[in-house]
Amino acid sequence: MNKILNIVPEIPLFNGLPENQLDAIKEIAVEKQFNKGEIIFSEGDDGQGFFVIAEGRVKIYKVSTDGKEQILHIFGRGQPFGEVPVFAGQKFPANAQAIENIKTLFFPRTAFIHLISGNPSLALNMLAVLSRKLRQFTVQIENLSLKEIPARLASYLVYLADQQENEESIELTISKGQLASILGTIPETLSRIFAKLSGQGLIRVDGRKITLLDRNSLEDLAQYGKETG
Amino acid sequence: MNKILNIVPEIPLFNGLPENQLDAIKEIAVEKQFNKGEIIFSEGDDGQGFFVIAEGRVKIYKVSTDGKEQILHIFGRGQPFGEVPVFAGQKFPANAQAIENIKTLFFPRTAFIHLISGNPSLALNMLAVLSRKLRQFTVQIENLSLKEIPARLASYLVYLADQQENEESIELTISKGQLASILGTIPETLSRIFAKLSGQGLIRVDGRKITLLDRNSLEDLAQYGKETG
Repeated sequence: MNKILNIVPEIPLFNGLPENQLDAIKEIAVEKQFNKGEIIFSEGDDGQGFFVIAEGRVKIYKVSTDGKEQILHIFGRGQPFGEVPVFAGQKFPANAQAIENIKTLFFPRTAFIHLISGNPSLALNMLAVLSRKLRQFTVQIENLSLKEIPARLASYLVYLADQQENEESIELTISKGQLASILGTIPETLSRIFAKLSGQGLIRVDGRKITLLDRNSLEDLAQYGKETG
Repeated sequence: MNKILNIVPEIPLFNGLPENQLDAIKEIAVEKQFNKGEIIFSEGDDGQGFFVIAEGRVKIYKVSTDGKEQILHIFGRGQPFGEVPVFAGQKFPANAQAIENIKTLFFPRTAFIHLISGNPSLALNMLAVLSRKLRQFTVQIENLSLKEIPARLASYLVYLADQQENEESIELTISKGQLASILGTIPETLSRIFAKLSGQGLIRVDGRKITLLDRNSLEDLAQYGKETG
């Protein structure tokens, strides 16, 4: 059996599906590989299907005309991307770029819609995937519009600690430049805020490892925009 | 037959479904009415089901701790809201308030999931609804993070003209205070920008009616952040 296709049973989107349906999914999947830096699709391209990552990470982003970039998501192993046009029947609303060498499975639109039509569990899984993305966007919109950047960073660190199920320290999985873009700022400002939070004894930064020294104060900062410590 | 239930065949989410399935949908629907100003649900509440509007309009919004409000959506007749927890199985990610007296149909989570499990067309319609909301959020995130406020306003006016299928003039369907919140600004700034665009001959404002005098320049402004006119 092929190596990339081996990931199918581990993909959360296909959770709980019986063997014969996993086989049907493997049959329509097309393996696609991209080199680090390669553009997978651009905003406005026709969406002929969506991707699931088997290896590596992908950045989904918008670019303003003066070249400023806003990252919407960073996706990794097992996560789908580019599915909006599959169901809304239009063009990709953002750009996708490989930030590492990546291996993906591509699911052509028509074949996948045919599969989902005969498979309510797959439909419900896909509804859960889209709903979680909507939830994440509401958090991102709140962060962009309502919070100052230190509060955005604190919010992101607490979020990452929950994601990584580690109360005490986290591993930053993206570059600081990418994190700055996600938080709607520039790397220089982000560095100053990291230094400020370190100086206040809230965090300790060792390369990509960040120790949360005072999680309560970080949570206060995330929620109220100020530290209590 | 009951008056509110009469809207079921007109709801885009239920487009193309046969009569017996529309009947099944009517059977699980619960009529709920809310007065203008009433909170329908708050962020963090358990989502026991979602709503479709039969009459009136609803505001979906986030509030920061200092009381600043960010509107995520304004929904009207025929549009669903509050469906994220139905599929992602968690809490409402934002607040919903009736901005007029409204009539809704409420669809309880368990009964609706049961329906969708036996009805692939309904599942695909719901996937399209969520995908369109994701698309709209990517535009809103782009606007918040990448565009200046005049560009955001121009983008909104062009969007509204397309929505209302009228090249020459549009009817503003929300208050200017609400529009300011959507665009991430305050009413005073928005008024100045309306005046600026009027002075430049791009638009003419008569109360809630806005005539697009120079759509090309508005599109340039929306896209490039500057007027060519």
